[in-house]
Amino acid sequence: MPNMKYNPVSIIRKKREGDPLTKEEIQFLIQSYTADQIPDYQMSAFLMASFLNGLNSDEAAALTYSMLHSGIIVDLSHISGKKVDKHSTGGVGDKLSLILAPIVASCGVPVPMISGRGLGHSGGTLDKLESIPGFNVDITLDRYKEIIKKHNLVLAGQTEEIAPADKRLYSLRDVTATVESIPLIAGSIMSKKLAEGIDALVLDVKFGSGAFMKNIDDAKELAETLVSIGEQFGKETIAYLTNMNQPLGYAIGNWLEVKESIDCLKGIGPDDVMEITHLLAGTMIYLGNKADSIDEGIEMSHDAIENGAAFQKWVDIVEEHGGDVSVIKNPDQYPNVKFKVDVSSIGSGVITKMDTYAMGMISLELGAGRRSKEDDVDPQAGIMLHKKIGGKVERDETFATLYTNKEESIDEAVKNLKAAIELADELQNPLKSITHRVDKDGIHEYQ
Amino acid sequence: MPNMKYNPVSIIRKKREGDPLTKEEIQFLIQSYTADQIPDYQMSAFLMASFLNGLNSDEAAALTYSMLHSGIIVDLSHISGKKVDKHSTGGVGDKLSLILAPIVASCGVPVPMISGRGLGHSGGTLDKLESIPGFNVDITLDRYKEIIKKHNLVLAGQTEEIAPADKRLYSLRDVTATVESIPLIAGSIMSKKLAEGIDALVLDVKFGSGAFMKNIDDAKELAETLVSIGEQFGKETIAYLTNMNQPLGYAIGNWLEVKESIDCLKGIGPDDVMEITHLLAGTMIYLGNKADSIDEGIEMSHDAIENGAAFQKWVDIVEEHGGDVSVIKNPDQYPNVKFKVDVSSIGSGVITKMDTYAMGMISLELGAGRRSKEDDVDPQAGIMLHKKIGGKVERDETFATLYTNKEESIDEAVKNLKAAIELADELQNPLKSITHRVDKDGIHEYQ
Repeated sequence: MPNMKYNPVSIIRKKREGDPLTKEEIQFLIQSYTADQIPDYQMSAFLMASFLNGLNSDEAAALTYSMLHSGIIVDLSHISGKKVDKHSTGGVGDKLSLILAPIVASCGVPVPMISGRGLGHSGGTLDKLESIPGFNVDITLDRYKEIIKKHNLVLAGQTEEIAPADKRLYSLRDVTATVESIPLIAGSIMSKKLAEGIDALVLDVKFGSGAFMKNIDDAKELAETLVSIGEQFGKETIAYLTNMNQPLGYAIGNWLEVKESIDCLKGIGPDDVMEITHLLAGTMIYLGNKADSIDEGIEMSHDAIENGAAFQKWVDIVEEHGGDVSVIKNPDQYPNVKFKVDVSSIGSGVITKMDTYAMGMISLELGAGRRSKEDDVDPQAGIMLHKKIGGKVERDETFATLYTNKEESIDEAVKNLKAAIELADELQNPLKSITHRVDKDGIHEYQ
Repeated sequence: MPNMKYNPVSIIRKKREGDPLTKEEIQFLIQSYTADQIPDYQMSAFLMASFLNGLNSDEAAALTYSMLHSGIIVDLSHISGKKVDKHSTGGVGDKLSLILAPIVASCGVPVPMISGRGLGHSGGTLDKLESIPGFNVDITLDRYKEIIKKHNLVLAGQTEEIAPADKRLYSLRDVTATVESIPLIAGSIMSKKLAEGIDALVLDVKFGSGAFMKNIDDAKELAETLVSIGEQFGKETIAYLTNMNQPLGYAIGNWLEVKESIDCLKGIGPDDVMEITHLLAGTMIYLGNKADSIDEGIEMSHDAIENGAAFQKWVDIVEEHGGDVSVIKNPDQYPNVKFKVDVSSIGSGVITKMDTYAMGMISLELGAGRRSKEDDVDPQAGIMLHKKIGGKVERDETFATLYTNKEESIDEAVKNLKAAIELADELQNPLKSITHRVDKDGIHEYQ
């Protein structure tokens, strides 16, 4: 490769030795890789060296920049006002996007939301949206711009045009054991989010058994890296650390979560879901300059539920994306799943722990998730919890109901779900849903 | 890959986390890679993880085992007695193999020697042998067995049949910045040496400016790893740490080094060359059960020079390999190089330092070495030193002579060679040629 300004082996060696790379070196690597001028085996050596020696915040920002500029950046300058999106690092029962997006849009803040699909234990917003009959997330860029102009909201899937370098890098990381690196994760998230045409971003960084970051220190580091990248790109970014040591709400599974979201939008949602929803929505409303403080934003979020504006926005956006509004208005009209199986407790006491990762995997096995990207998901499958941490159960009392069309998966799922809760006489330490806020000034304990 | 017993991603992840791999996991990786069932990009991620997290001695032995068994292991059971070889980690002016192999063979110990070519600043035994007109190192396995049977000695190049996995891995390491890893280096060396059909091995592990290991601690670690692997394979292995902070002897370059070797075999070699040669040869004779101690082996080595047996062995083996014996007997008959250029000192004083790496690179530029594997080498090119560390030079006194057929390389070489020596009023700390011995009992200071 005679006309190359940089030598890939030298760059890999530099990172191997733990030395920081320049923006130009990172850009050379990513651009050359995307242009097929650097082979996979050099990129994977670089990824492993980056995984083990780390990338500092400048390097993470340079990586984000290079991946962002490998594709298009949506121009939303025809939309007035600050465009704000929210991103969650993913968890079990995390349907917050479905609730907060209509809230925020109904408060006058444009929300350009590009989402992903579920993988492994974690669900994905696209799968949930597609459980609504007719809902189409595969839209052109022109249609994307048209929908957000009309509704202050658009809910779309990632296209080939958005950060193609990230897509290639992610596939390579997946098969080379280099996924769980904080700067690589941060670069991947931010390159896609920045491509949406946003002006500000709220991040929900989850920790705990059902999250990608099992411990809170990793989650803090990821939140700080994400905020640092956002700020380096001139986008105001606020992250919250939230607890994923139990599922969010009671519903796990695509349609089950849509149904619970409808409850939330009607003002009868579970407390833990609503607490985080209002905080994230309030922060988005504040960042979108429609409130003077986050607290005022939270109040507006409550109002949007109470006055029905958020639910109406939801109905409108479902209709705009081709979705069947009748099941939104009357969820009981949704087709019935073949098997509903109650799962009862093997002991009595207070639930003190939920193996949230296991619950995500059980939901997957029931049909709600995918093991690999090519798998299809069953919109009807999942788990409805009747109890959560702190709830009392008697022996043989039903604490959850399985929903599935796969009869062969039931026995194993029942056994695993029974084993996924821990009981004791009392709950010593109630879970705190939200623990920290991270913004450009640093990390702050929440409340 | 459904019928795979192990998952390559899990193995890479395990090494990434710093956990030791089992012998079976390493064997699975190497075998699958050699069989094209694992792609380069997974192997390079594994190599980088191994580079950064290390491989323990069991893992290094398992790696060696897998690479060794990727090819043939020469069966020398038709040769009676213990077969002993020597391996050097490479340096500048290192012609020891050419001297000690005939010494040891003439003392009755069979020496099956498979050597490599030079690369970068470091010379290779094969290139030196091929500077003898007609000398053929490309021999079949049958011929290899026949020559060692006849002469107790064979000097051959590596064939495709020897450790093919190592060859593939080395090529990948070369382009992924994963060369300089002690366990990977050790596995590469030992898989090739163990394939020769040896019973015992002597290792010359060099440290200093002209060696691959610049500092002695790395050299110690490499020596310990090599000895540990050898012992795990049931081959008695002794390593010496020797000093490469100045070239070995006065000659650098292929034919120039053969010529100096002839002097050595005639009993008029430089002291530093002979000191290490006798030690390594004596150790080989001892390991080959032809002496009761290393000291006795050293005495026998001296005798073999003095009584002419070693030189006769050299003449015989050159003839057997098709080499022109007349230039061995009368080196002055060797064709003349086009340019001989004296290089003089820019100051006066005692030489206290020689940039040995630079001297290796200057010799390369004069034509004696290769930048990449595909390059040809010029047998005539190189450097003859007239002074070494501790030697006194006056201003403008010649301290070296360049030999080259490339007129265009001369000016730069003269300039660089002048800059490659340091002078002072006196030499504070004379170099010690041999500093440590490493055997199965550990590391010992030498003398």
